[in-house]
Amino acid sequence: MHYVDGLECSEFDREVFTELRDGGLSCVTVTCGYWGDALESMDSLAAWRELERENADLIGIARTAADIGRIAAEGRTAILLGFQNSAFLAGRIRFVELFADLGVRVGQLTYNIQNDIGASCYDDPDSGLTRFGREVVAEMNRVGMAIDLSHVGNRTSLEAIEHSAVPVAITHANAASLVPHARNKPDDVLTELAARGGMLGVSGYRNISGPYAESIDAWAEMVAKTVELIGLDHVGIGTDLGRKVTFEHLQWMRQGRWSMRPQYGAGSATNPGKQPPLPWFPDTTAFPAKAEALRRYGFDDQSVSAVMGGNWMRFYTEVLPKPGNQQLEEE
Amino acid sequence: MHYVDGLECSEFDREVFTELRDGGLSCVTVTCGYWGDALESMDSLAAWRELERENADLIGIARTAADIGRIAAEGRTAILLGFQNSAFLAGRIRFVELFADLGVRVGQLTYNIQNDIGASCYDDPDSGLTRFGREVVAEMNRVGMAIDLSHVGNRTSLEAIEHSAVPVAITHANAASLVPHARNKPDDVLTELAARGGMLGVSGYRNISGPYAESIDAWAEMVAKTVELIGLDHVGIGTDLGRKVTFEHLQWMRQGRWSMRPQYGAGSATNPGKQPPLPWFPDTTAFPAKAEALRRYGFDDQSVSAVMGGNWMRFYTEVLPKPGNQQLEEE
Repeated sequence: MHYVDGLECSEFDREVFTELRDGGLSCVTVTCGYWGDALESMDSLAAWRELERENADLIGIARTAADIGRIAAEGRTAILLGFQNSAFLAGRIRFVELFADLGVRVGQLTYNIQNDIGASCYDDPDSGLTRFGREVVAEMNRVGMAIDLSHVGNRTSLEAIEHSAVPVAITHANAASLVPHARNKPDDVLTELAARGGMLGVSGYRNISGPYAESIDAWAEMVAKTVELIGLDHVGIGTDLGRKVTFEHLQWMRQGRWSMRPQYGAGSATNPGKQPPLPWFPDTTAFPAKAEALRRYGFDDQSVSAVMGGNWMRFYTEVLPKPGNQQLEEE
Repeated sequence: MHYVDGLECSEFDREVFTELRDGGLSCVTVTCGYWGDALESMDSLAAWRELERENADLIGIARTAADIGRIAAEGRTAILLGFQNSAFLAGRIRFVELFADLGVRVGQLTYNIQNDIGASCYDDPDSGLTRFGREVVAEMNRVGMAIDLSHVGNRTSLEAIEHSAVPVAITHANAASLVPHARNKPDDVLTELAARGGMLGVSGYRNISGPYAESIDAWAEMVAKTVELIGLDHVGIGTDLGRKVTFEHLQWMRQGRWSMRPQYGAGSATNPGKQPPLPWFPDTTAFPAKAEALRRYGFDDQSVSAVMGGNWMRFYTEVLPKPGNQQLEEE
């Protein structure tokens, strides 16, 4: 069985990589940046190459689904390089291919504010997928960069799902019908996502999980209700885990360089701080406990396997560059 | 009488500066860029300092309304440095002040596509002024950077007019009720612009002037109808003149780096090319002929003076940094 985490925002170091191994993770998508422009994003990718060299016994950067299988079989964790914003493109359509060549495999269209591609979940009105955004979606499809809609506005999300030639992902969010929050997704978005073969990574992040963050069994109940809503094949895990993320990191995520005033992201003025770790999921060493909780809730082995990582593996096989793909052969 | 051109996109050199002098222009706002990021925009500002040094007998870069008066009194043309897009900010609110320090005095919120500030006139739906956009408007107000809405979408324009603490400008566009075109402005936008003390620079650019581009007297008629619509105090000239602009320049303006396919801006697939110069306005040496045409149409001397430049001078006095302004004293 593969364990896959659809999105983490941790500050990775050898200790955190060791936790990935102790949890038995086959693959995790990491966050290489939020607000960085093209050059800063290249700095981040360069830093990841250094991390990979220094921790080659624990991790390997994956460029294809086959890479993930191979790295996991070697007893290491495959890293998918992702950005939680498209600022790395710096408005240039041709940079989609260049960053894919550099190994980027997951791109979130917008983070917490409107950009040239579309609206975030905190923007009203929602611009929808812009003309540039449509070009970006088509180009991400062509080069095998998975599209992430977790922080994206609902109209923009629906239009991205519609325009994408391949399934897309909401790597870390929950169903708004279970936990009402701007960051969670209404049923129409989830239904359309699933109808097109997409994936939802269920999170346990306190601000967007409400009562389902209270225990691992409550979390398993949220997974079960999400499966009822959109079908087993479309549900995975996206913890949004922020190991070693400090309050300063959180402020950067939320405020970036776009505002002179405090911004609260998924929090609020009355809930401005960093959430304490979940006692039942302090780090990825608790991944096996999630599988146990799903079994305890009543999921059969095949379903546990699908949710814990099998569905993400199928998605990556469909979306990431394939052997024979020109993109891949150039690399 | 001052002659002022609210916006040109010419490729300036000594010949074009000489034409400014031959036309008797007191002030022209130039276009320093469309798609350039912060560094490229600094390159453009650096190039303008070189142009100023090499042509100090003909032009001077103005930072205040008083500068414009002084430079014009010296028999030179004052240059206001402007950008037709806010890409120079690179998403950073603090860069508004930095670029103002470098002399930027006119900033268009968006060019031909949606950005992080708001929608262009070619976007549907119109996102309105975004949360970042509201911060940018407030900051432009504070540092004395005039806000330009010429290519900006209608909802975004209305919200920018509303949020701005000082009058704003549509430096180069026409009334859509006179010439229907996405780039021209509906009556509600123009009425609100004028109600808040703003300015419209009437253009003669063929693609947005229809029959009013056919002769200088037709153009004068458009000016008169615009004055009827929004009042004498709010009408000036914004030629959008593109001296020495080649087809390659035009393609850059329209397509930038955001699209892999041809884009047509104010043109169309059936009208993709660069418009030929207006025989009655080949360059700015014909500015005095515009004053003549207004007189011929029936404008009295005071009204001619207001439209030809007096209104722009009043606007600059209100909006640009003032003596005693901290921003100015730092410079």
